[in-house]
Amino acid sequence: MINRLTIIGVGLIGGSLARALRQARVCREIVGCGRELASLRQAQALGVIDRIELDPGAAVMGADMVVVAVPLGAMESVFRAIAPHVGADAVITDVGSAKASVIGAARRGFGTMPAQLVLGHPIAGTERSGVEASYAELFAHRKVILTPLQQTARSAVERVRDMWQATGAQVVEMSVEHHDKILAATSHLPHMLAYTLVDTLARMGEHDEIFSYAAGGFRDFTRIASSDPQMWHDICLSNREALLAMLDLFIQDLGRLREAVGNNDSAYLLTLFQRAKQARDHFAQQFKA
Amino acid sequence: MINRLTIIGVGLIGGSLARALRQARVCREIVGCGRELASLRQAQALGVIDRIELDPGAAVMGADMVVVAVPLGAMESVFRAIAPHVGADAVITDVGSAKASVIGAARRGFGTMPAQLVLGHPIAGTERSGVEASYAELFAHRKVILTPLQQTARSAVERVRDMWQATGAQVVEMSVEHHDKILAATSHLPHMLAYTLVDTLARMGEHDEIFSYAAGGFRDFTRIASSDPQMWHDICLSNREALLAMLDLFIQDLGRLREAVGNNDSAYLLTLFQRAKQARDHFAQQFKA
Repeated sequence: MINRLTIIGVGLIGGSLARALRQARVCREIVGCGRELASLRQAQALGVIDRIELDPGAAVMGADMVVVAVPLGAMESVFRAIAPHVGADAVITDVGSAKASVIGAARRGFGTMPAQLVLGHPIAGTERSGVEASYAELFAHRKVILTPLQQTARSAVERVRDMWQATGAQVVEMSVEHHDKILAATSHLPHMLAYTLVDTLARMGEHDEIFSYAAGGFRDFTRIASSDPQMWHDICLSNREALLAMLDLFIQDLGRLREAVGNNDSAYLLTLFQRAKQARDHFAQQFKA
Repeated sequence: MINRLTIIGVGLIGGSLARALRQARVCREIVGCGRELASLRQAQALGVIDRIELDPGAAVMGADMVVVAVPLGAMESVFRAIAPHVGADAVITDVGSAKASVIGAARRGFGTMPAQLVLGHPIAGTERSGVEASYAELFAHRKVILTPLQQTARSAVERVRDMWQATGAQVVEMSVEHHDKILAATSHLPHMLAYTLVDTLARMGEHDEIFSYAAGGFRDFTRIASSDPQMWHDICLSNREALLAMLDLFIQDLGRLREAVGNNDSAYLLTLFQRAKQARDHFAQQFKA
């Protein structure tokens, strides 16, 4: 049971977490904190949070669980603001898509990596953002990755695990480096491709006409290009090394495909498409959605 | 009204066209032709076609409308097989995703480009294939592009237009070159990116684990990588020049993004993501689905 949960950043993820925990009845009070009063008022009107605090320091006072759900670029300033006010027994966790950068933000913001800070990342989301897009079932049957460090208190890890399990998520643990590599491959690289494709087409002369002939495949392929630009800007720069490695690998593979098309290399193309279809069909079966 | 419609290649597109025309009651008899008897029997059992013919020549005899819905690589041999048997008043059309290549196939198969052959392409589909995936509503509110040549009979164009309009589609006309360029941008390039991404990840050491942490965004982004490999092999080689131009443009733009990430070019990334999101949101509004 969480007595007072403080969520800093009540958007799609923070709002959905609040809804899910309320639905699971594992939370007595939810304090919402953010920079935009209008958005917090909306969250309160929607019943997502009980109380509004604009100051992060005031928001964490008396909280036994603090979830920082702000873009990666805002982590450090939030940590700095809450550091003097967060209780010694409170557990702190985040939901950032790149974990190594959060360690740096914590060391600078808190002056150290607190034992009570558990790095976490729910593998769930949609291309929409804001509390109005949040819903209680967002994390059901999805994975949440925790990347505790050696100095992280096990009791804190268990409390964060319990919280996420109450939302219906499956909690796993792995190293920070492994998390950042996997996310660069399955999430950060695809977002770069979708953003680039849409922009490449938009900058072609006849772009309005081009988009008017796009079909359902294009709509699905580019859905993630509607994601929040600031959030993705922060992710790019926060997971820079892992993302660069994946970009280089992909650019090399796409260059090979380009050569195969140029050389009419029928066997290469057919083998590549067959192998990819098999892998994708296998994934779709596992994902069951 | 079509008296006898012959569909050569009763898969997702051919099967959906048959279902839609039957539902619209604009077709007296539908003859299905293909290489796999089992698949044709299934189409007959599903009520999609009335009669089965394995030989394309026999299939087109007495037909007033012939739709060739086979992969691009099979067009020429189908044209060659039907050339001696198709009626002088019959209209012939195809559904291929690249039009310049169909002209070549027609010139070789028929020995000339027949005035009664109307090149067409419905901008609709799913990642599934086969008659079992077909449904009558596939073309509703979707675009069908016709690319008639100077020698194409206007009366033939009008009959093909009427047929597609009966499925609920919106029919437009454009040049072969324009069609091939637009499709390379909105369909062929995205398929290359999805196939390459899935294959890049599948060839990484820990691929089973990597896919297990992929979320809904990845599922949508890679859906088109489950498309039929043979069909896409044929499209690549049939629309080679336009696809190469798009691949080169994309590789150049992705290289610029890579440099921006490498150089921590915050302004470049934010501007790119904002521009792309705006274009994608605008497209999604137009697409309304």
